[in-house]
Amino acid sequence: MTVVRAIQEADGLHVTFGPDGHEAVFAQTWLANYATAEVDRRSEDAKRLWSARDFPAGPPVTHWSVFASSDGVRLRCLRELLSTGFMLLRGVPAVPGAVADVIASFGYIRETNYGRLFDVQVETAPTNLAYTSLPIGPHTDNPYRDPVPTLQALHCLVSSAEGGESGLLDGFRAAAQLRAEDPPAFDRLCQTPVVFSYADTAAQLRATRPMIGLNLAGMIREIRYNSRSMEPMRPRSGALPAEAANEMHDFYVAYRAFAAILLRPSGTLRFTLAPGDCIVFDNTRILHSRTGFSAAGRRHLQGCYADIDGVESTVAVLARSCGRKAG
Amino acid sequence: MTVVRAIQEADGLHVTFGPDGHEAVFAQTWLANYATAEVDRRSEDAKRLWSARDFPAGPPVTHWSVFASSDGVRLRCLRELLSTGFMLLRGVPAVPGAVADVIASFGYIRETNYGRLFDVQVETAPTNLAYTSLPIGPHTDNPYRDPVPTLQALHCLVSSAEGGESGLLDGFRAAAQLRAEDPPAFDRLCQTPVVFSYADTAAQLRATRPMIGLNLAGMIREIRYNSRSMEPMRPRSGALPAEAANEMHDFYVAYRAFAAILLRPSGTLRFTLAPGDCIVFDNTRILHSRTGFSAAGRRHLQGCYADIDGVESTVAVLARSCGRKAG
Repeated sequence: MTVVRAIQEADGLHVTFGPDGHEAVFAQTWLANYATAEVDRRSEDAKRLWSARDFPAGPPVTHWSVFASSDGVRLRCLRELLSTGFMLLRGVPAVPGAVADVIASFGYIRETNYGRLFDVQVETAPTNLAYTSLPIGPHTDNPYRDPVPTLQALHCLVSSAEGGESGLLDGFRAAAQLRAEDPPAFDRLCQTPVVFSYADTAAQLRATRPMIGLNLAGMIREIRYNSRSMEPMRPRSGALPAEAANEMHDFYVAYRAFAAILLRPSGTLRFTLAPGDCIVFDNTRILHSRTGFSAAGRRHLQGCYADIDGVESTVAVLARSCGRKAG
Repeated sequence: MTVVRAIQEADGLHVTFGPDGHEAVFAQTWLANYATAEVDRRSEDAKRLWSARDFPAGPPVTHWSVFASSDGVRLRCLRELLSTGFMLLRGVPAVPGAVADVIASFGYIRETNYGRLFDVQVETAPTNLAYTSLPIGPHTDNPYRDPVPTLQALHCLVSSAEGGESGLLDGFRAAAQLRAEDPPAFDRLCQTPVVFSYADTAAQLRATRPMIGLNLAGMIREIRYNSRSMEPMRPRSGALPAEAANEMHDFYVAYRAFAAILLRPSGTLRFTLAPGDCIVFDNTRILHSRTGFSAAGRRHLQGCYADIDGVESTVAVLARSCGRKAG
């Protein structure tokens, strides 16, 4: 097939194709729509990177009843969720299962071996650090799963224990800082496959992915960071022993440099979840953490995984009816 | 922290760390476990690539009652699913919802805007080519979703129409063929982000990903191919107009080269689904297609998305009890 003729007319570009003489008209608006480069909306290019000081009054809060009833408010909040990577809803009924209603307002639950919903509270025989009262450093969930759940919700049902403060941290910003401060370390974490794994009696999961994932344009696109499920490094296939030793050394130096950035107090937005609070965040970007809490009292969160493409879809559909002004 | 001393003893390697003198013992078996390179199990490295001639008698068939009741059979079939990218179950009760039981036997449904299950049959006002009687060329589903569903099941409930033959094609093998026959075209498809999109009244989805995705070692890891949801190419950000024109030309030439390989009849395994048949396949690798069918009679499939990490987990857990011999 060839282009025989192309003529610009009032209603668009008239193109005649050979050999059969088929003519097609491409409208100017259609052509203009594809004349500019696409932004990868999942990458740092489309996000507002932040540190704790960008939220001096703590995380912005939206009341669930308003979120659920107002398309305009839901649109604004979900856009913030896409842009900053998190949103905090207040007043979600502190009853088991309510977190499923939150997810249903913009997407679909991703069921896993942990169930449709999972309970984060102290267990007598915990299979996971989450089910103790111990502190947990900043991490993303389930890096051993592929595809990783791209969204997580944690809904507070009971909070009478001392401590257990929550923290959120922008992993894209931390990775961008590593790139600025130590480019070779950044490159090493982007280029080294890491094995993440998890096993209990009913499941055994394993994924091989870098800690910092880039898109084809080299922009930061996803963070996997979890010291508990990361396996010791292995030699690269085909590497000579001395090469492998050097590469592993360089990897661990880079990992420590990234860890040091993640542990800077300025990065983490800290707040305490009260019953009825529900935090929703991008699990490919935001690292979450908690401080330890006392044995006296109880702390019970109900959690749920979901996917962020549902949020993007809901935003796009709401924007049709709310118009651009609502954003 | 430094290593002060490392001594090989009968029970393993005794390492003394400074400055505090902490000693740790690393067992030989533990060390040996991490001494070899990891294979990325999602990549072509861990798969058996195939063409239609590898299955002269058609796709291997397992009866659902045996699959559901025998751990050993289930283990073997699921390993085949991971290795070849598909499995065909026969005798799944031809009643709505049964496909959910199939998924529940090894994983979890991925609910989407199409529902937990979706019905593939002729509709009067179809929003998708699937809901007509027209032929559909080889494609992967939902490339506009990110994360894409990594597994798909299609369960035949009714098949009284003439035609509607199903086809499966190994996308990893097709991509490997492109790499062998036309390396620049292969590289172009690996390096060019493609925008895939979908919109109806209730959803609007969009993802920016290459047609052929590689892992960090450069091995083929995922295929996205769907001419219906692929948007026209846009210029690369920062490219001069002449560069952009050349890049787009090269991309479309590469796309046609890949399409030509996909359309070779030798690649596609063809078979007809009968009521009770359920085909399950890796949607990051296997392209599926169907021929058109007659207006007389009915053809009704019920479909479902899920994720392949559940299959890997089930295989690993079954292998613990069945032992290696069962595989």
